[in-house]
Amino acid sequence: MNAQTKIKRKNDELKFVCVGLDTDIKKIPQFILQEKDPIYFFNKKIIEATREHTAAYKINFAFYEVFGSYGFEMIRKTLEEIPDDILIIADAKRGDIGNTSEMYAKSIYEHFRFDSVTLNPYMGFDSLEPFINYKDKLNFILGLTSNPGANDIEKVELKDGRKIFQMVIDKILEWNRINNNCGIVFGATNSVELNQNISRMKNCFVLLPGAGKQGGSFEEIVKIFYAFQRKDFLVNMSRSIIYSNETTLFDKSAEEEIIKLNQQARFIYNN
Amino acid sequence: MNAQTKIKRKNDELKFVCVGLDTDIKKIPQFILQEKDPIYFFNKKIIEATREHTAAYKINFAFYEVFGSYGFEMIRKTLEEIPDDILIIADAKRGDIGNTSEMYAKSIYEHFRFDSVTLNPYMGFDSLEPFINYKDKLNFILGLTSNPGANDIEKVELKDGRKIFQMVIDKILEWNRINNNCGIVFGATNSVELNQNISRMKNCFVLLPGAGKQGGSFEEIVKIFYAFQRKDFLVNMSRSIIYSNETTLFDKSAEEEIIKLNQQARFIYNN
Repeated sequence: MNAQTKIKRKNDELKFVCVGLDTDIKKIPQFILQEKDPIYFFNKKIIEATREHTAAYKINFAFYEVFGSYGFEMIRKTLEEIPDDILIIADAKRGDIGNTSEMYAKSIYEHFRFDSVTLNPYMGFDSLEPFINYKDKLNFILGLTSNPGANDIEKVELKDGRKIFQMVIDKILEWNRINNNCGIVFGATNSVELNQNISRMKNCFVLLPGAGKQGGSFEEIVKIFYAFQRKDFLVNMSRSIIYSNETTLFDKSAEEEIIKLNQQARFIYNN
Repeated sequence: MNAQTKIKRKNDELKFVCVGLDTDIKKIPQFILQEKDPIYFFNKKIIEATREHTAAYKINFAFYEVFGSYGFEMIRKTLEEIPDDILIIADAKRGDIGNTSEMYAKSIYEHFRFDSVTLNPYMGFDSLEPFINYKDKLNFILGLTSNPGANDIEKVELKDGRKIFQMVIDKILEWNRINNNCGIVFGATNSVELNQNISRMKNCFVLLPGAGKQGGSFEEIVKIFYAFQRKDFLVNMSRSIIYSNETTLFDKSAEEEIIKLNQQARFIYNN
């Protein structure tokens, strides 16, 4: 099943939550540290508890790379636990000159076998092209991010009146015409900008990080997409789901959190 | 020894070449494939042959990540072969929201113990801050890159008349005031823009990839820095040094290539 089909099926079931596996050894329940591979153990439990309810999983590479080769091994083991019909996003913000990006694309799509990746557009088209060449994958390219630093570059105004992130979104739409496999990353903390730019992001899946602990509201985001009669989006939720409970009930609690979010979404779309 | 001291000492000896270890299993001499760890073996031989002549080594993460955890292990083993007084750059183009960038910085500077990294500025200050907080390290932030895609975003004109990459360079100078540990990545293929912007890049080390196979000229770059009476730069050379010979003499050939480049530089500065 290609990446677009996986996400579309979940979206049609009104599932919009992407569970972010930003697994931090300092934040997982401390009893897990007795396990041989605590990060893998934690991920496995979270996946078992949430797989029926989630639309996707997102692996944040930083939290694994901090352990070097062992961390990469934990990514590999974690991916084995995720059912085939659920989209898996490599949150790796890749982007480099052509021959280097080719290697990154091979790493993400052939070695690890992810369905999807996050990419940084700063270096332009040929830095993304090797990823776009994988037709059955989905490439989420940074538009407007959820962090305060989005003001520094992304929101600066161009000569033609657009903001930099708006030009980037326009370029993503253009690049999407090649293989229809580009998505847009748009920070959930920017709800005003989302309202203003959602029509600009036509025909592209939107990945929205920054809801929950970063300040964005899941409900607000869903309402905006509903208002525009769209279902093609994922709201990434990490800390507020995976660290919602510090006891042996952490997985049960994660399940309850995602069920609540799905109910909110159904309430909005079905009323 | 901190990163700035390492690079300054080599620059004072008129060494400006950074050897890029973009080690590709398909491009290394084929007899090496008999070795247990061909990538490590190749790197070790290249390092032994070039360490007296190089100003720095740059590890291009893509070429290692393509092998997952094994690739990260090859990075670790390669780093052990590099003498302590030579700057080692992690070419990883990192940059993410604050708590994620903290993990990336830990990975690069504490787990792998690099001296330096390449960073992508698109997400703004807080995405780079965790790296800048390491005072003794050197953070090379993308300004203008060497690839054709530099036209897509980096060279677009802002409302205030600057190009995007010029605004980014101005911001890097600002960020450099915090801990004096920011450098600028400027593609060696852009010699016209280098001439026009070298004065803008004051007080920052400049890393110039793109010389050699990508089309930039080492000699031209050195002449520009010489004309502005500057020595604070590194020209990355990868394919034209490490793949200059396909036989058992590949390391000897790499040594000869870098010696030639050093002679060119000395000729320019001493005449």
